Amino acid sequence: MSLPKSLDILYGGTELLAKYVSELTDGKFQIQPFASGELVGAGQIADAVANQTIEMGHSASQYYYGKDPTFTLGNGIPFGLNARQMNAWLYEGGNDLLNTFYAKHKMHALPGGNTGGQMGGWYRKEIKSLEDFQGLRLRIGGLAGSILAKLGVVPIQLPGSDVYVALERGAIDAAEFTGPYDDQKLGFVKVAPYYYYPGFWEGCAAVHFFFNLDLWNDLPPAYKSALTAAAAAANMDVLCKYDAQNPDALRALLGAGAQLRPFSQDILDAAWTASHETYDELSSQNENWKTIYSNMIEFRNKSYAWWQVDEYSYDSYMIRARARK
Amino acid sequence: MSLPKSLDILYGGTELLAKYVSELTDGKFQIQPFASGELVGAGQIADAVANQTIEMGHSASQYYYGKDPTFTLGNGIPFGLNARQMNAWLYEGGNDLLNTFYAKHKMHALPGGNTGGQMGGWYRKEIKSLEDFQGLRLRIGGLAGSILAKLGVVPIQLPGSDVYVALERGAIDAAEFTGPYDDQKLGFVKVAPYYYYPGFWEGCAAVHFFFNLDLWNDLPPAYKSALTAAAAAANMDVLCKYDAQNPDALRALLGAGAQLRPFSQDILDAAWTASHETYDELSSQNENWKTIYSNMIEFRNKSYAWWQVDEYSYDSYMIRARARK
Repeated sequence: MSLPKSLDILYGGTELLAKYVSELTDGKFQIQPFASGELVGAGQIADAVANQTIEMGHSASQYYYGKDPTFTLGNGIPFGLNARQMNAWLYEGGNDLLNTFYAKHKMHALPGGNTGGQMGGWYRKEIKSLEDFQGLRLRIGGLAGSILAKLGVVPIQLPGSDVYVALERGAIDAAEFTGPYDDQKLGFVKVAPYYYYPGFWEGCAAVHFFFNLDLWNDLPPAYKSALTAAAAAANMDVLCKYDAQNPDALRALLGAGAQLRPFSQDILDAAWTASHETYDELSSQNENWKTIYSNMIEFRNKSYAWWQVDEYSYDSYMIRARARK
Repeated sequence: MSLPKSLDILYGGTELLAKYVSELTDGKFQIQPFASGELVGAGQIADAVANQTIEMGHSASQYYYGKDPTFTLGNGIPFGLNARQMNAWLYEGGNDLLNTFYAKHKMHALPGGNTGGQMGGWYRKEIKSLEDFQGLRLRIGGLAGSILAKLGVVPIQLPGSDVYVALERGAIDAAEFTGPYDDQKLGFVKVAPYYYYPGFWEGCAAVHFFFNLDLWNDLPPAYKSALTAAAAAANMDVLCKYDAQNPDALRALLGAGAQLRPFSQDILDAAWTASHETYDELSSQNENWKTIYSNMIEFRNKSYAWWQVDEYSYDSYMIRARARK
């Protein structure tokens, strides 16, 4: 697992997969989970799976953005799908497309968890408009970092363990992580209390179980089926746990002094434009990206047309009714 | 399965469970699916499972509303949870609570599918305000029907197969079914073109796999685990298929003449009030209801506080950006 055990919901997905597969095979098929760094580092899982240093990994595919930005598509891109749309896209064709790409990297993948919508991170000072993004040293990586750089942000890559001290000392101005449940553990509220939403660069973040392709292909059918069903159950479980825990965590963070702030319209609009320009550039340069991105974005656009009518109007009423009580 | 094979996404959940369980047990544990009416009628599954006429069933628990309104809580109530919240509630405690209730009816249940948000049905004439609900003969059953009756609607129970002719002849004024993908097959658009949203009486509809409690308890651990993992995978699969198919179906329905209309504010407000009055009445009369309902509604209220900040603000921006393009 490319994360530490302290991210217990995501790491719990790894453990749940192992537990299910053991139970489903009467203990014959054992998977032994290791946290980030115990066998290989977070960013080395794709290589380690490909060369069979490890047989499988559990990871956010955006860690491998440097190999090919296409890896980000399995994880979630700025202004991409929300969590339900992501699952629908993955299981109804998207994951098969991703696997034609992952096969080039000697891997086969199954969806293995989702954080749901993420927050836009913790800021030492208020960000009132796009101007406040100029020169802002924000801990963020990958594709989202390169898009925010077009808006004037200085993306900084830092290991999670170093972020608190960097924020406290002002070595960085802001840091994004995931959402309230995970963010709460890191204590950023004490040193960077402005907590922005929505996390437009991750409408959701999916993680995958990655298998060495040859080893996957050699598995007996019952074991493939055990991994597939167990991965689906773990995928569901992770999202359910975030959805169940984030409300209390947000309330606790507000109690601890978090100042909730929405990103301003000019920031969202500039980020939307920069994101889609980046996607068009990538589509013109990279066939892997083009094939999968165009499929995903068509799904997104169709899905939101329906979402707006039903899910969104239901949620709108529920939110208004709640406020009135 | 308490539905016909023509509802292929929900019936597909039954088939997927059977397929997974067979694969996971190397063909040793076989489940044979039957559609509604092949062994027992749609409304008889709870009794048939309890008395072991059948060993398990796949059904919307609201069919058994007549036994105890508490059955509706596993399915979805007016102004209840949306689909993601429903899964989070079920897997993080709600389903255990439901199982303490189902045990009184000699059943054990696992979540086994979700339609996502439903539509508010098909109407021969426009419903411009609460006044137009007076005397309106609407095909709807169960708890939602009894709540709408407080608003002046005349709830009519009709088998799905009889609805089209009743609408065509004006024997009923309106009918609710599920959402675009299923509704499209029934052709209601030709005889009742006004298609209302949101389906406030079903923010989502969950279905469950029901097992005879004694038979469930006697299963070997590996078989329990196979059913649990397979049910989770089927639960996910059903929702993903609806989410993937509804957008195209809505577009096709609009092409066929469907007139999309939002329910008016006075209807939603009156229905909200009538629903919560009904829930309070039930809580004062029925301990089963009170225990599970109060847990669910606390979850709903907490969840929407977080949903509003992040998921909803993300969806809001995505919908606005899409409209601007």
